[in-house]
Amino acid sequence: MRISELSEATGVPVPTLKYYLREGLLMSGVASARTRADYGDEHVSRVRLVRALIEQGGVGIAGVHAILTALDDPPTTRHGFLGAAHQVVPLPGADSPVSDEVRALLDRLGWQVEDDAPAARSLSASLVALRRAGIPTNDALEDAYAHAMEAVARLDLQMVDAAGGPAEALGVVVIANVLTDPILVALRRLAQEALSAARELS
Amino acid sequence: MRISELSEATGVPVPTLKYYLREGLLMSGVASARTRADYGDEHVSRVRLVRALIEQGGVGIAGVHAILTALDDPPTTRHGFLGAAHQVVPLPGADSPVSDEVRALLDRLGWQVEDDAPAARSLSASLVALRRAGIPTNDALEDAYAHAMEAVARLDLQMVDAAGGPAEALGVVVIANVLTDPILVALRRLAQEALSAARELS
Repeated sequence: MRISELSEATGVPVPTLKYYLREGLLMSGVASARTRADYGDEHVSRVRLVRALIEQGGVGIAGVHAILTALDDPPTTRHGFLGAAHQVVPLPGADSPVSDEVRALLDRLGWQVEDDAPAARSLSASLVALRRAGIPTNDALEDAYAHAMEAVARLDLQMVDAAGGPAEALGVVVIANVLTDPILVALRRLAQEALSAARELS
Repeated sequence: MRISELSEATGVPVPTLKYYLREGLLMSGVASARTRADYGDEHVSRVRLVRALIEQGGVGIAGVHAILTALDDPPTTRHGFLGAAHQVVPLPGADSPVSDEVRALLDRLGWQVEDDAPAARSLSASLVALRRAGIPTNDALEDAYAHAMEAVARLDLQMVDAAGGPAEALGVVVIANVLTDPILVALRRLAQEALSAARELS
């Protein structure tokens, strides 16, 4: 198909497609004439993925590049997928050291993770920020939040299992983490609203 | 205390404090001489809050302004807090319409929320983006994620209950949502890693 048809198939305007091409986020079409290129189904899925990551996932151009690179050259072990998936989507404060508080939390939970996992660093920084903002937490509350997110992670792994081979699994983890973080946040807000409304009525 | 002491007490450099003052994120000190102002404890807590929101919460200047305004003029009902809290932190796709799919989900869950809740709009857009990116979901999976986030929301309301009066409760909801979204994301990543490692070993 021509670029105008690729635009129709994806709902993405032609100037935006040309921008994706210039930035290397979309592979070139097959030249069919001096000023014309042909695009196929793989271009349609790539455009949909890039658009979803940028618009709904809030990922920057550099992040999209990192995700596409990881998808092109997937690691070989299941555990390796998650490491790669977590590296490509930076969390705030991932350059902070891992605090003793977070090590103690991981011990209590029995979670075996890499000693310098970016998520452990980010969690350390976030707990400091929360306390700085005047919001107290305690072990019981942190454990309870962790157990709720363990339930979420079990569902995440089910999704990975449902995906086919290694490359598909990596794609699902990377994309699902980026795109379902806002889904979890939205569900959390809706649940807060629903629980709060139920209380006012009772 | 002088601005240099405010800097020491909060760990925020003087030029950054002057930037907060210029942007109206920090109230002026009490003039004690022509070129000197005195700052107190309320300045210390404000600086800590602003810094936490910007650095760890990833909130922009406009968002911090909205949060501070809501804190200064809190709503009067418990349910009103959540509405205000949710308005000040924009979710991606909150200008999309609410889809039939999301209405059906809310019905299944028995969650009574405002018909045009920003989170319901954002959720609609995210589910479309997920499908566009080639990740299938189904009712059972969406319900399971929603139940996990309902457990999180119950903990959130416990935190609100632990806060004192209306103004404190609003503060806790706004700040906790902004600052604990990254905590939940980090816990989710750590749980994925821990569950995945446990599987490879077994």
